[in-house]
Amino acid sequence: MASLRSLSIWFFFFFVFVFLINPSISIRTSFIKLPGSDGSRYCDSWRLAAETNNVGTWDLIPSICVDSVAEYLNGDQFLSDYSVIVDYALAFAKSVEISGDGKDVWIFDIDETLLTNIDYYKAHGYGSEPYDDNKFSEWVEQGTAPAFDASLRLYNALKKLGFTIILLTGRDEHQRTSTETNLRDAGYSGWERLLLRGPNDQGKSATNYKSEQRSKLIEEGFKIRGNSGDQWSDLQGFAVADRSFKVPNPMYYIP
Amino acid sequence: MASLRSLSIWFFFFFVFVFLINPSISIRTSFIKLPGSDGSRYCDSWRLAAETNNVGTWDLIPSICVDSVAEYLNGDQFLSDYSVIVDYALAFAKSVEISGDGKDVWIFDIDETLLTNIDYYKAHGYGSEPYDDNKFSEWVEQGTAPAFDASLRLYNALKKLGFTIILLTGRDEHQRTSTETNLRDAGYSGWERLLLRGPNDQGKSATNYKSEQRSKLIEEGFKIRGNSGDQWSDLQGFAVADRSFKVPNPMYYIP
Repeated sequence: MASLRSLSIWFFFFFVFVFLINPSISIRTSFIKLPGSDGSRYCDSWRLAAETNNVGTWDLIPSICVDSVAEYLNGDQFLSDYSVIVDYALAFAKSVEISGDGKDVWIFDIDETLLTNIDYYKAHGYGSEPYDDNKFSEWVEQGTAPAFDASLRLYNALKKLGFTIILLTGRDEHQRTSTETNLRDAGYSGWERLLLRGPNDQGKSATNYKSEQRSKLIEEGFKIRGNSGDQWSDLQGFAVADRSFKVPNPMYYIP
Repeated sequence: MASLRSLSIWFFFFFVFVFLINPSISIRTSFIKLPGSDGSRYCDSWRLAAETNNVGTWDLIPSICVDSVAEYLNGDQFLSDYSVIVDYALAFAKSVEISGDGKDVWIFDIDETLLTNIDYYKAHGYGSEPYDDNKFSEWVEQGTAPAFDASLRLYNALKKLGFTIILLTGRDEHQRTSTETNLRDAGYSGWERLLLRGPNDQGKSATNYKSEQRSKLIEEGFKIRGNSGDQWSDLQGFAVADRSFKVPNPMYYIP
């Protein structure tokens, strides 16, 4: 009996050691969440992998990263990341010799590039819930998406420099009015064209659809100097711009 | 005299307030460095901009980011970033149908991809000092660069899956022996070819040189399934792989 009792005491102290003292035991992380703990470290790595197009085609954000993505999107780092990219875009734009014939084009995507749909995705798990076309269309019809300050700054500076602004979006032709109203309310004006998906563009990948639209612009004599988008499919494919600028979007992937 | 004394006391307390109490005064930051302060926020944004190829051609890392880049490279986040990318590369590799004729190729760059030159760059400001060809050649001749654990894991897994491994590097032909010795000492073996810059490749951009080499492989009947590199010039251009994987390198940019 005595040895059984001393064994119990030994086990008690063993478990005290294992769960409370040994920092490598994961149960501790549920009590104290340090910055840079495994979860946030993984999610930061995942975001970098997504932004550098290393993830390939992906559907939903990892479920363990919802808090991390929300924190990023609602914090200052996201705005800083945006702003630094805009500074590089602007530095490049200033190096372009504008011909003055109105043919020097800068292309902008709209969603998550000129306008932020953060208020919509806040209510839909920041990209952790499957995309709902009907619900997103309702949101687009509301036309209340705000501008990114940094994008508005770039947009207005490019106009001043003499660039022709062309908007190329995956939104549908029937969303033209609500899109135009939203853009104007958010502070954008003076674009040359707003290109939306027509009946013949349905079912095409964004990469193909956008490359085709850029090809047509080049055939018309436009020179595509710059291109800003939150998706690699805004920027890659054929008929690409002289310089492309990828702004961050850790919420969804469009092929 | 009395008013001068009270003025002195007033000034004393004013400076106490200004330098010790008011948190917006920059002198405080030399005492307490908070995570997410302006400097590290900018440097995190700069790293993301560089990794997403938004910076374009760049020469040296921003001087204010030396500490931040050093901290990143010597910390666990860099290893985590590497490891997550390798996991995606491996998931893709497992989805490839290997033909069994030895023609399914995975291309690896060497510097900052298979081998890390961190010990060299530690002594050269982590990319904040101009590149010195002679000094770097001396380092290459030493042949002591360690492997990235994650890359060794990917490399060995790809061999097991039946991929043919081809190494394509910007190193020169005369560095073949030291490169082979270094790779073997670091744990790599069983590559099909080690392609180095020959006399005809001097002066070519990395993008062109590597694209040409990939083209020749395709002409020989190889199918380039995957490609791992730390530079966009390892991965882009023509004759690109089915999937390309960009591992992080915030120290230098090769066009």
